[in-house]
Amino acid sequence: MRYPESLLKLARALSRLPGIGPKTAQKLALFLAFHKEVAEELKEGLAALRDLGVCRVCGNLAEGELCPICQDEGRDRALLAVVETVADLYALERSGEFSGVYHVLGGALNPLEGVGPKDLNLESLWPRLQEVREVILATSMTVEGEATALFLAEELKKRGVKATRLAYGLPVGGSLEYVDEVTLGRALEGRKPL
Amino acid sequence: MRYPESLLKLARALSRLPGIGPKTAQKLALFLAFHKEVAEELKEGLAALRDLGVCRVCGNLAEGELCPICQDEGRDRALLAVVETVADLYALERSGEFSGVYHVLGGALNPLEGVGPKDLNLESLWPRLQEVREVILATSMTVEGEATALFLAEELKKRGVKATRLAYGLPVGGSLEYVDEVTLGRALEGRKPL
Repeated sequence: MRYPESLLKLARALSRLPGIGPKTAQKLALFLAFHKEVAEELKEGLAALRDLGVCRVCGNLAEGELCPICQDEGRDRALLAVVETVADLYALERSGEFSGVYHVLGGALNPLEGVGPKDLNLESLWPRLQEVREVILATSMTVEGEATALFLAEELKKRGVKATRLAYGLPVGGSLEYVDEVTLGRALEGRKPL
Repeated sequence: MRYPESLLKLARALSRLPGIGPKTAQKLALFLAFHKEVAEELKEGLAALRDLGVCRVCGNLAEGELCPICQDEGRDRALLAVVETVADLYALERSGEFSGVYHVLGGALNPLEGVGPKDLNLESLWPRLQEVREVILATSMTVEGEATALFLAEELKKRGVKATRLAYGLPVGGSLEYVDEVTLGRALEGRKPL
């Protein structure tokens, strides 16, 4: 038996989402075929994306020219956190500990995959540095994130701007026993008086 | 920071899909915000669902009045498999071992959740029995599926139609060691000469 073409079409589209394989995609397509109200809601949700653009200052998602953070008069514009993605920005926001503004690179340096400085949202970063006191390099602790942080640290040094990096250490709630040795080494190195 | 309303709307819609929690939904919504071409494809896939209805004979998904199976002249109309859902029908089709036609109940009896015979696609089953030689009760081996099979076996007996049930036993490729005792008991009971 061949599956209905419209079901296959929907399953193919769903399988392009991250973490959704062909089998899950087919299961979801079947679910949507029998739950038209959910399909309708999803269609409206997707249509709402047309209102969503990118903030022309920082690269965060925005419903207008500027994102909610760049619009917020209460944020400290002299403190700038550079992140790889909007998801990372949201993660920092959830910590509730950051009152500055952001710059979203849209990725990290990855020479093996051909991602160089030109592929990142950097051109709009340099002019922003004039009003900045400190740049927090909040890229991931991965090889690519580290390379990006090192590259940016160099560039910021040239421009006379203070750069800091997020601290390494044990995750809160993490058990010493299960922490990898490199992280543990860094946590020892960065120990603080109590 | 508040998230953009359009992103929240999409995440809410995605979280109504089975197996997708609020965190995954947000991750997917962010992905879609930055991959407009995937969002577009998904929107078209959802729009294609409007062509998809239910076969008026068997309850399978159909792009016209009749599903591909009910249209197929080569299928044996005297052999009818009763299944709970279209997903079960597809599973049987994938086995490649069944050449009859189907009847999709749209669920299984579940008195605790108030699902009775009236809630299943049964009214259209009875008239079909006239041209049927054997009904294979292919509901799941769950409590609800078993109850549904027993109920249907009774009804079919009253109507003088032969009813059979899928065999219990070890799954192919399954190791004896890890099979539960009830299944193993049934496999012993149903042993066959080699």
